[in-house]
Amino acid sequence: MRRLFTNCDILATENGRLKYIRRGSLGVNGSVIDYIGPDEPIDRYDIYWDMSDRLLIPGLVNAHTHTAMTLLRGIGSGLSLQEWLFDTVFPIEDKLTAEDIRAGTELAMLEMIASGTTSFSDMYMEPQETVEAALKAGLRANICRPVQCFDPAERPQDNRRIKESLALFDKYDGAGDGRIKIDFSVHAEYTCTPDVVRYYASLVRERRGNMHIHLSETKKEHDACVERYGVTPARWFADLGAFDSRAFAAHCVWVTEDDMKLMSDMGVSAVHCPSSNMKLGSGFAPVRALTDAGVNVALGTDGASSNNNLNMMEELHLASILHSGHTGDPTVIKPAETVRMATVNGARLQGRDDTGELTVGKKADIAALDISRPHTIPNLDPLALITCSAQAGDVVMTMVDGKVLYDNGRFLTLNAPQIYRDVRRAVERVYGRK
Amino acid sequence: MRRLFTNCDILATENGRLKYIRRGSLGVNGSVIDYIGPDEPIDRYDIYWDMSDRLLIPGLVNAHTHTAMTLLRGIGSGLSLQEWLFDTVFPIEDKLTAEDIRAGTELAMLEMIASGTTSFSDMYMEPQETVEAALKAGLRANICRPVQCFDPAERPQDNRRIKESLALFDKYDGAGDGRIKIDFSVHAEYTCTPDVVRYYASLVRERRGNMHIHLSETKKEHDACVERYGVTPARWFADLGAFDSRAFAAHCVWVTEDDMKLMSDMGVSAVHCPSSNMKLGSGFAPVRALTDAGVNVALGTDGASSNNNLNMMEELHLASILHSGHTGDPTVIKPAETVRMATVNGARLQGRDDTGELTVGKKADIAALDISRPHTIPNLDPLALITCSAQAGDVVMTMVDGKVLYDNGRFLTLNAPQIYRDVRRAVERVYGRK
Repeated sequence: MRRLFTNCDILATENGRLKYIRRGSLGVNGSVIDYIGPDEPIDRYDIYWDMSDRLLIPGLVNAHTHTAMTLLRGIGSGLSLQEWLFDTVFPIEDKLTAEDIRAGTELAMLEMIASGTTSFSDMYMEPQETVEAALKAGLRANICRPVQCFDPAERPQDNRRIKESLALFDKYDGAGDGRIKIDFSVHAEYTCTPDVVRYYASLVRERRGNMHIHLSETKKEHDACVERYGVTPARWFADLGAFDSRAFAAHCVWVTEDDMKLMSDMGVSAVHCPSSNMKLGSGFAPVRALTDAGVNVALGTDGASSNNNLNMMEELHLASILHSGHTGDPTVIKPAETVRMATVNGARLQGRDDTGELTVGKKADIAALDISRPHTIPNLDPLALITCSAQAGDVVMTMVDGKVLYDNGRFLTLNAPQIYRDVRRAVERVYGRK
Repeated sequence: MRRLFTNCDILATENGRLKYIRRGSLGVNGSVIDYIGPDEPIDRYDIYWDMSDRLLIPGLVNAHTHTAMTLLRGIGSGLSLQEWLFDTVFPIEDKLTAEDIRAGTELAMLEMIASGTTSFSDMYMEPQETVEAALKAGLRANICRPVQCFDPAERPQDNRRIKESLALFDKYDGAGDGRIKIDFSVHAEYTCTPDVVRYYASLVRERRGNMHIHLSETKKEHDACVERYGVTPARWFADLGAFDSRAFAAHCVWVTEDDMKLMSDMGVSAVHCPSSNMKLGSGFAPVRALTDAGVNVALGTDGASSNNNLNMMEELHLASILHSGHTGDPTVIKPAETVRMATVNGARLQGRDDTGELTVGKKADIAALDISRPHTIPNLDPLALITCSAQAGDVVMTMVDGKVLYDNGRFLTLNAPQIYRDVRRAVERVYGRK
């Protein structure tokens, strides 16, 4: 089935560079983009959609999140990461059943789809629920079962989470025509033991897996690692073999220059999560230095509990202005760089080189923004519009793999009212209230 | 005419404290709130609106903006304040006619109304256009003609802008049943001479006027004043009498401790503009210290050219998380404080003690948010929801003075398509392109 979008602005990529086309056309054949240009193609298409006043951008890639944490949205406001995590989040998470997690994850799918996200990298327990929800939703997702170990005496071979992680990989990697990839994960240095990391890393290496970790999110955590092991968390992970296959690290707020060089040398991507890092008082990640060191930097929302939403347009905006405020240099990060962070850099980190850009031959993962609204007029500088004027509420269509998931407020793959009912039930169960 | 909103959540103020009511009612009699409570009142109303899944919040007060600069949206991205202002903005502004300014201002009215702003403090040339647009829109506005003087030899009595400022006050102050207030303004220390400020301040004092200025926005500007005059900009303004009547100062990024004490002592409010300050690389205003010093701190977007929109929900969000990221303390600013900054503190700065809060007897300036969307579910912590989850696109109704200006995407006081045409014409004229 071939579909042609006409009369739309398009943020395309040509020869690796962003190119803005005004009132052009974009054609989709099956799951792949087969035409982009200022004029309508001569070829016949099956369906023509007039997209006047719409801007097509590459679908946003949320490179670090915990989708089910929508169930904890707003919980523990005004606490530091350690208190928030150990005193508030973990006790609630202990109560969550697989059914709750399914509900929270499906709610997250609705939110991501409605805000233009087409692919996400998730780290959470009961990951099979996230896989099933993503399959149903039609989203792309890299999903992992994070490994933790709080008992130094535990034999790595006995770690339940490692077993779950491997079983998840065996069962689901490549599901949904490749829309699902199963990653591997050590949750963080401060929630695992060296023996477990070393053992698990060897298994990941055998599978040429993609490792998803939390890294140097807070100063306290970073310094405690140096105190405990005499090395930074990045070095600790590297020494234990966690970076021997592909890897990406969320936050990286407190990484050192040596860490950045290490990450660059070993091909470890970083995920910048500005909202979460600000909200929890973690700090500002050195995005300019990371990029200059050659590290691939993507963007993520983190979980809704520390954000408090899954709004990638907001992260794109924050990444575009925060570092100017912090460094005093309004040119420190270019809009084209943050747009790439929110799209193709995330795709790269996910191992999805066929997504993240609007280019003929790439997968049709697309978000359409309504640019006829007061705050998007006039459109004198399209990249400024996308990074600093537009908002998630402007998203009017989301397509993944050539399939429309969302169209003018309607969800086409998920039963939103049923999901809201399921969430209400889960919230009542977990919190004893609505 | 009496109108009752039923079944809505309400962010009310009771005895000076925010109070969240779930599924309550709010009644409006003429321009004034006459009922707030968890139950429906016994009184008969003329109109009943079921507001299920809606949250009523006090209308947002944008305490510092330049509305007509919507025409410069996206212009000069990635420049520092001084280059942006002198090399880009001023040359474009020189071309603007009153007609252009009217178009840009009306576009701003649409944007503000659609994003829940009910009152704004504007500083721009051709201010009569802004007054007329605000009157037509039905918004509240404090409007001024900023005074500048680049010629040290100019006699203050001859300053054209001072004359325009006074004439504006005489003609419009109190117009639209008091919805329009005319403020006074010295644009900034670096765009005026001491003689002009001293003379003008004496005229403002006679009128017991409200003075709107830019203050210590950039380090360069702040330091240059100290170099030039041996005093900080705040002290310079105070010494020249600019703070002898009521005053408020936009930005205040680089104010010193002494400046804060001075502002507190003289009742000078500060307007925090986080997006603009970040985007232009100006820095982060010391909001905690300002508040602790006793300064009334409100929020503003600044002009759309340095933001790049007039989205107060975004400023509310940024003010709520930025300072945690900057200080490392996630408790440094409480959500209740930023909600007050975005509402009642702005109202106070505008000299509008009868607005800014949902309380019986206050003016019915209200924004309604749709809280049935995926990113606003569940609502476990209403202030966290308002500050960190909701977005401007969730605004579904805006009311000022008891009059509905916006309802589910429809503008009820302005002709949006005509405004878009006027803007297109102005943009073509100014930039030679669409």
